[in-house]
Amino acid sequence: MTQDWQQLNRDVMAVLQTARQRVLDRMASPLTVAEKTNRKDLVTNVDRENEQFLVSEIRRLDPEAHILGEEGFGDRLTSLKGRVWIVDPIDGTMNFVKQHDNFAMMIGIYQDGVGQLGFIYDVMKNVLYHGGKAVDGVWANQDQLTAPMDLPLAEGLMGASSPIVIHDIAHMQAIVHASSGMRIYGSAGIEIINCLLGKTVGYISYLKPWDIAAGQILLNCLDVRVSTIDGRPLDMLSSNLVLVATKKAQRDILQIEEDDVSL
Amino acid sequence: MTQDWQQLNRDVMAVLQTARQRVLDRMASPLTVAEKTNRKDLVTNVDRENEQFLVSEIRRLDPEAHILGEEGFGDRLTSLKGRVWIVDPIDGTMNFVKQHDNFAMMIGIYQDGVGQLGFIYDVMKNVLYHGGKAVDGVWANQDQLTAPMDLPLAEGLMGASSPIVIHDIAHMQAIVHASSGMRIYGSAGIEIINCLLGKTVGYISYLKPWDIAAGQILLNCLDVRVSTIDGRPLDMLSSNLVLVATKKAQRDILQIEEDDVSL
Repeated sequence: MTQDWQQLNRDVMAVLQTARQRVLDRMASPLTVAEKTNRKDLVTNVDRENEQFLVSEIRRLDPEAHILGEEGFGDRLTSLKGRVWIVDPIDGTMNFVKQHDNFAMMIGIYQDGVGQLGFIYDVMKNVLYHGGKAVDGVWANQDQLTAPMDLPLAEGLMGASSPIVIHDIAHMQAIVHASSGMRIYGSAGIEIINCLLGKTVGYISYLKPWDIAAGQILLNCLDVRVSTIDGRPLDMLSSNLVLVATKKAQRDILQIEEDDVSL
Repeated sequence: MTQDWQQLNRDVMAVLQTARQRVLDRMASPLTVAEKTNRKDLVTNVDRENEQFLVSEIRRLDPEAHILGEEGFGDRLTSLKGRVWIVDPIDGTMNFVKQHDNFAMMIGIYQDGVGQLGFIYDVMKNVLYHGGKAVDGVWANQDQLTAPMDLPLAEGLMGASSPIVIHDIAHMQAIVHASSGMRIYGSAGIEIINCLLGKTVGYISYLKPWDIAAGQILLNCLDVRVSTIDGRPLDMLSSNLVLVATKKAQRDILQIEEDDVSL
């Protein structure tokens, strides 16, 4: 069938608005928190329940969907053929647990490997960022966004995840030094929103497919680059050390990476 | 005269609300940005104009006020005798310039060295945190805050400033490792708000008097500890390496500092 992307965009927005209300209702009761790989990698009952809800709603909207979900309620994917939905039910689970703030729901829809629609929902601010190639634009709720200014690294703030900085992975400390400063918000979704809005010029972190699937679609649509730290396309079926950056900041950061190699 | 602190609290809130509107109006035009000590230490026309406005309003409210202001429009203070107002017209100037968000106005009022009233205004969220010993409580706009939970370091997120982390000052990396994670928001005021709300269990940064004067008053009123990194009282006339923390997190962090000394 020919996909009506505008209609699908509206349908997914409605699903996410329902999901948001369910999450807010659940937050009124104590969370059940479990560790996944270590004590800083958490999952809650709300992550799991929300993924189950989103997966069932996606199957209703798109019975042929292939679904990759963080908590494992989707399918086991070995390729990006067909229409692939990549779902993060609660991005920034540590913030969700400790702050009840600064977390997001994210869905990215790919067609034969090409990003079409992305959704990042800042749940507590109640702002849903949505759009992509298939609808030719990015919106924050009803307001269309313009592309952020193409600032060089020296003129902008860089987002990062904490381990990248502390272990100085990928010359992160040199990158911070060359920038206007570093910010750490603790959620890929919130970091990506800051890049969409031009509040940071970039973001570096190890990310799983569900951490960047929606963001890549929205960012590319606003001319913000998404690549591996050495400038290559992401593999959307595995983890990547991801560099999000304006065109100029990407050039500056790839230069820092190259300079070191040549030493 | 006997001070009517309740009235003064209301008067300062009114002044800050006027100041906020002036700042928002100014933000509609391009900022004039200058470097102070280095390219990451900025001042804008709005910092200066807002301090001049606040200082003139303080003199109207309290003709005998001694005023210590970041941009130098106050007095030259050598003691904390009498009533001392400590003013930061724009805290988080880098965020103000680069993000137009995540900055604060702050005023702390001390009487003979004892903190009485503190004000931290999250300008873009339009939430004014105010209160202190003199009015026996802390409010976010009209809503009184309860003390945050006294969580140990291992159960909470730690705020920090970027240089402390990158240069591993005061064993910051060990502190981050022992915590649930690190966040960097780029404004002492915003970091202190997170501590007041229990969204982080602490914050470590080099701070000038105007960066912590208001926060110390509000935090102490909600049983959150403010000290130097080795647990001593702050000198409010100079810079300090400041540790803000819940009682339990303070104990845990002082233990990390001590353990290293004994090596």
